[in-house]
Amino acid sequence: MSKVFVNVGLSLDGYMAPEGMTLENWDKPEAHDWAAKWGALMGWALPLQTFRENLKLGPGGETGPVNDFFKRTTERIGANIMGKRMFEGGERGWPEEAPFHTDVYVLTHEKREPWVRPGGTTFYFVNDGIEAALERARASAGDRDVRISGGADVIQQYLNAGVVEEIEISLVPVLFGGGRRLFDNLGKAVPAYRIDWTLQSPAATHIRYVRV
Amino acid sequence: MSKVFVNVGLSLDGYMAPEGMTLENWDKPEAHDWAAKWGALMGWALPLQTFRENLKLGPGGETGPVNDFFKRTTERIGANIMGKRMFEGGERGWPEEAPFHTDVYVLTHEKREPWVRPGGTTFYFVNDGIEAALERARASAGDRDVRISGGADVIQQYLNAGVVEEIEISLVPVLFGGGRRLFDNLGKAVPAYRIDWTLQSPAATHIRYVRV
Repeated sequence: MSKVFVNVGLSLDGYMAPEGMTLENWDKPEAHDWAAKWGALMGWALPLQTFRENLKLGPGGETGPVNDFFKRTTERIGANIMGKRMFEGGERGWPEEAPFHTDVYVLTHEKREPWVRPGGTTFYFVNDGIEAALERARASAGDRDVRISGGADVIQQYLNAGVVEEIEISLVPVLFGGGRRLFDNLGKAVPAYRIDWTLQSPAATHIRYVRV
Repeated sequence: MSKVFVNVGLSLDGYMAPEGMTLENWDKPEAHDWAAKWGALMGWALPLQTFRENLKLGPGGETGPVNDFFKRTTERIGANIMGKRMFEGGERGWPEEAPFHTDVYVLTHEKREPWVRPGGTTFYFVNDGIEAALERARASAGDRDVRISGGADVIQQYLNAGVVEEIEISLVPVLFGGGRRLFDNLGKAVPAYRIDWTLQSPAATHIRYVRV
């Protein structure tokens, strides 16, 4: 049975995304300095061989334990679920060959036909809630796992629904001072987690938590 | 020259203290379930030999790398600085031999004579701001280090003043869902930090950050 998991980079102060990182500011990287902050948050991943391969940035790149971790995460994903804002940002920012190579279920009120991208990514637009999206993602993922990709509000909805079995965090020593926090708006139904695995690198502390 | 550092336990969602952990609720441990949450946050430290020794809980206790870390922190402290609320909580909660064994500078508007406790702890009540308190703490600490003990608002003031050279965090896999966050109200003057050292234990991920 496939697992439901989250894998995100977090600033030391707990933000998934800095203040100002919105669709309106997509062409204004200087707004609240969001692009530099985002770059600092992603700094640990950008040089990795698998990251470069995934975004078609060319050959080469770092191998080793952090790349192994990143690669394992990439390979275990059978389907993704994301929110409308994350999709809209990606619609502008991702290359034509979107970096998912799976079905992606986008939570939205918009009715829209599936959007097929080269390289195996198809975006489906789900209008009937997080449970329906998860059911469809599970069916699509088969034996592989379902990743709740983001943004923070979508992850919070799935945490509050109690269905997230693993949370993988890459905790990066940057302070954003504002933005969208991962762990916010949590209710009493959020499960308990324990530490399952960690990996230290100079750029980030990677920790996997599993549901108790 | 002595260093200025912070050493705190943090819930996975970034809280130093759970909702409801206030002086008013000191005798109501069930309020917002604060006492159980606090116990879960401190779970990694309570069994340690040095923690038990420090609070006169009797002989025995865990040794090993986590205790070594805790012991190193305890021994490096030459003076503590804390806020009024933390002091008032401790005034009720600490044993007669308060667990500091150094001078402690309490930031407050209250004028009060130094309060000498058995075992080497003297509380001084500082009315003229965080810089004056730090100056006095440095003078008292000598070659040892100054710990900004808490609460969150006091640590934030020192972070914003740019004087905190090390931040040691024990990140515990509990979710509080509310309370007082460590990293909040941060301005642009907060320094940058890098990862210096980490230690994984089943109960917490211990990370030391040093100012770049």
